[in-house]
Amino acid sequence: MVETSQDDQVPKAVVNRMSLYLRELQQLLRSGRNTTSSTQLGQLLGFTDAQVRKDLAHFGQFGYPGIGYHCEELTSAIRRILGTDQDWPVAIVGVGNLGRALLGYQGFGHQGFSVVAAFDADSTKVGGRIEGIAVYSIDDLEKIVRRERIRLGMITVPAGAAQQVAERLARSGVEGIVNFAPVTLVEPAGICVVGVDLAIELEQLSFAVVSRNKKP
Amino acid sequence: MVETSQDDQVPKAVVNRMSLYLRELQQLLRSGRNTTSSTQLGQLLGFTDAQVRKDLAHFGQFGYPGIGYHCEELTSAIRRILGTDQDWPVAIVGVGNLGRALLGYQGFGHQGFSVVAAFDADSTKVGGRIEGIAVYSIDDLEKIVRRERIRLGMITVPAGAAQQVAERLARSGVEGIVNFAPVTLVEPAGICVVGVDLAIELEQLSFAVVSRNKKP
Repeated sequence: MVETSQDDQVPKAVVNRMSLYLRELQQLLRSGRNTTSSTQLGQLLGFTDAQVRKDLAHFGQFGYPGIGYHCEELTSAIRRILGTDQDWPVAIVGVGNLGRALLGYQGFGHQGFSVVAAFDADSTKVGGRIEGIAVYSIDDLEKIVRRERIRLGMITVPAGAAQQVAERLARSGVEGIVNFAPVTLVEPAGICVVGVDLAIELEQLSFAVVSRNKKP
Repeated sequence: MVETSQDDQVPKAVVNRMSLYLRELQQLLRSGRNTTSSTQLGQLLGFTDAQVRKDLAHFGQFGYPGIGYHCEELTSAIRRILGTDQDWPVAIVGVGNLGRALLGYQGFGHQGFSVVAAFDADSTKVGGRIEGIAVYSIDDLEKIVRRERIRLGMITVPAGAAQQVAERLARSGVEGIVNFAPVTLVEPAGICVVGVDLAIELEQLSFAVVSRNKKP
């Protein structure tokens, strides 16, 4: 039984765990499993079974008494919840080291995101392909974004250029932005922005280490 | 007045916002400001002033009546809370595109993390320097980690090699790991692991977009 509903206010941490459940379900399916349980999913990720059930309950009623979850059904449901059952053409703006790394990152395709265009201001980079993806001039951003119906943008330009790129992407119809530039963006109207500051990951880690070291 | 205390259970989202406050404070200091307020910090980041005060209250009593916060004092306090007042020599294991991007990432140094060594299994990459950082053979991991007193490791190897690398880093005395390989690691005993799955950022974004599109 799969009935999806949705809270208006699902905590970000819950949405994050939905991504983790999805990966474990995909792994179970690859290894030939048809069903699973909140206990098994919890064990794979180090959560309690109650946590797993509570997280899923934000979105509806899943699972069958005496059986648990059908892996394929729950996978589809989570993809629908996360929106990854839809097509998400993605553009990467800024073809430096990080842009190149993202162009070669296999994980996006596995989850249904297809990087279809890259942009750079450096004319020596424009016109070629990296990992099979065409690199366009930043001057053609609006034209290509509309033509390729690009819905998401990843910004990997220097900090000083990021806000302007975000606004140009928003005006061209992009619905969401992941910003890797080390600067906090003012969210253009009607668009979702997620910031990724890689130093923050290290700070979260140093916090965890010093907190643990303080414990008697 | 700066008295730092610490809850045992500070939510991850609060720790994350401490990193954001730190960046805004550093920016204010660079622009010559000596004091700030919860209202100003909140406005810069799109939070309410109550949120800022509540977040800081997890860690102690900051700020002065009629003045607000001394930027420099609060910066030092947050760096102490996050542990970035300490030295954190960092190693990057795996010199592919992402490893290269991380070696060139300026943001780590700005926050006090110094990348001091890189490792790779490919002998053609070993012996050189990238962005001034020496690339060692993965065979020398334990020796170099101990010699350079490396405390944190970033794993950018293929998924299949990540668990073994994590265990070798842990055995060599590394205290924390940021894992960029697209696989969930079993945490080696006594070590903190933070996973960064770049596709999860895109999923969080597609979730935000579809949630917003559903609203009337």
